[in-house]
Amino acid sequence: RALARSEPVSTVEVEALLDLIKWDSSGLAVAIAQDVDTGAILMQGFVNRDAVSATIASKRATYFSRSRRSLWTKGETSSNFIDVVDVYLDCDRDSIIYLGKPDGPTCHTGADTCYFTRAADILQNKPLIGENGLATSTLYDLERVIQQRKSEPDGKKPSWTKRLLQDQKLLCSKIREEAGELCKTVEENEGRKRTVSEMADVLYHSMVLLAAQDVKMAEVMEVLRARFSQSGIEEKSSRGRSSS
Amino acid sequence: RALARSEPVSTVEVEALLDLIKWDSSGLAVAIAQDVDTGAILMQGFVNRDAVSATIASKRATYFSRSRRSLWTKGETSSNFIDVVDVYLDCDRDSIIYLGKPDGPTCHTGADTCYFTRAADILQNKPLIGENGLATSTLYDLERVIQQRKSEPDGKKPSWTKRLLQDQKLLCSKIREEAGELCKTVEENEGRKRTVSEMADVLYHSMVLLAAQDVKMAEVMEVLRARFSQSGIEEKSSRGRSSS
Ligand SMILES: [Zn+2]
Ligand SMILES: [Zn+2]
Ligand SMILES: [Zn+2]
Ligand SMILES: [Zn+2]
Ligand SMILES: [Zn+2]
Ligand SMILES: [Zn+2]
Ligand SMILES: [Zn+2]
Ligand SMILES: [Zn+2]
Ligand SMILES: [Zn+2]
Repeated sequence: RALARSEPVSTVEVEALLDLIKWDSSGLAVAIAQDVDTGAILMQGFVNRDAVSATIASKRATYFSRSRRSLWTKGETSSNFIDVVDVYLDCDRDSIIYLGKPDGPTCHTGADTCYFTRAADILQNKPLIGENGLATSTLYDLERVIQQRKSEPDGKKPSWTKRLLQDQKLLCSKIREEAGELCKTVEENEGRKRTVSEMADVLYHSMVLLAAQDVKMAEVMEVLRARFSQSGIEEKSSRGRSSS
Repeated sequence: RALARSEPVSTVEVEALLDLIKWDSSGLAVAIAQDVDTGAILMQGFVNRDAVSATIASKRATYFSRSRRSLWTKGETSSNFIDVVDVYLDCDRDSIIYLGKPDGPTCHTGADTCYFTRAADILQNKPLIGENGLATSTLYDLERVIQQRKSEPDGKKPSWTKRLLQDQKLLCSKIREEAGELCKTVEENEGRKRTVSEMADVLYHSMVLLAAQDVKMAEVMEVLRARFSQSGIEEKSSRGRSSS
């Protein structure tokens, strides 16, 4: 038994929660681990009562292995735990989200998540591209596209993203310009459609700056979460206000 | 049989993909529908071979109902389909992500997603808050916090967010200031930690502007996806370059 395996607990409150879950004929439900900052689906497994109660008690994602017929805590051997921040049930209570922060890559292959095999690549007989093919949502797809431009070979005519990455003055003048254009959409009543488009410009250009600095959007999210989860937005911003 | 139910197909390529999936003893696998733009987990169900092939053929999320023992396409009665953009398998190929765009609320309760029941609220015997309690990642948590500030009653001392929402001049001057501070982190070599913090400031303040304009971050993501999925980033930005 792994030393780092979480232990189930039994309190009146936890048992009441477990009683609400709709277990299948084998006493199991589905549990999906999702990155609280990026929204990436990290992995999916099955849980029984003990797995859910151990997760709640330890705040580490814990599952029931159907093949080994035993509890296991993600990270019990790799030390890459998933630190669970929140647990959610779906409307008919047979499916669970473990919303958490991974300590490191979730997959035993070393990939950040287990979902890196694109059906379209299989259907088209394309070589599978491993971790580069992670299932991600739009913001993180964009981050990856920018990253790919960054590693474009020099020499050939650079893409616009690559030019921005190479020319800090150009990049910063674009960021200031786009922030101004975003503001103008309200100052000059240009309508919400323009706001959407200018916000997209602000995001794209500032994400190029993040890539230039080797900063991941996930780090920015982590800071935002720390700030507003303690009403910190207001506090930090009032400090900003008086100092500016 | 619902008219809007998707039909399975059988081609050599699809059968080869289906053969790769590790079906359980009942011939099923797990399929998670995830919003491609926000990363929100919309719902989870089970799939058999027909459900996956129907999804691939129709590009609409289709499942196998274990209770009714039949195929069903999400939206076949409500017309709120989930338009599937990409399908991913996990590392051991017994779990699937349908990455897609919902036509409307996914849950039969009218909630955007099925995951709106927080275990912590049950454990603490708090009243369940329904759709306001959706499981979301940091960016969309922040969006919700800003939205809550917006609906603060007038009269009492306003929060900083509320003040920004009420004072367009203050808000715009902050956005321009924060964009400048983000640029300064590279111009004056302040280090990547400062970049993370200033990017958080830029995001927070520009999201307050989005809230003022009743713009959802999901709309911005949709525009970004349309742009870069056709190498549109470069195109749009080069246009911006010559016009600016
Ligand atoms: Zn369910
Ligand atoms: Zn940890
Ligand atoms: Zn894996
Ligand atoms: Zn612009
Ligand atoms: Zn699996
Ligand atoms: Zn549709
Ligand atoms: Zn539902
Ligand atoms: Zn700042
Ligand atoms: Zn411009």
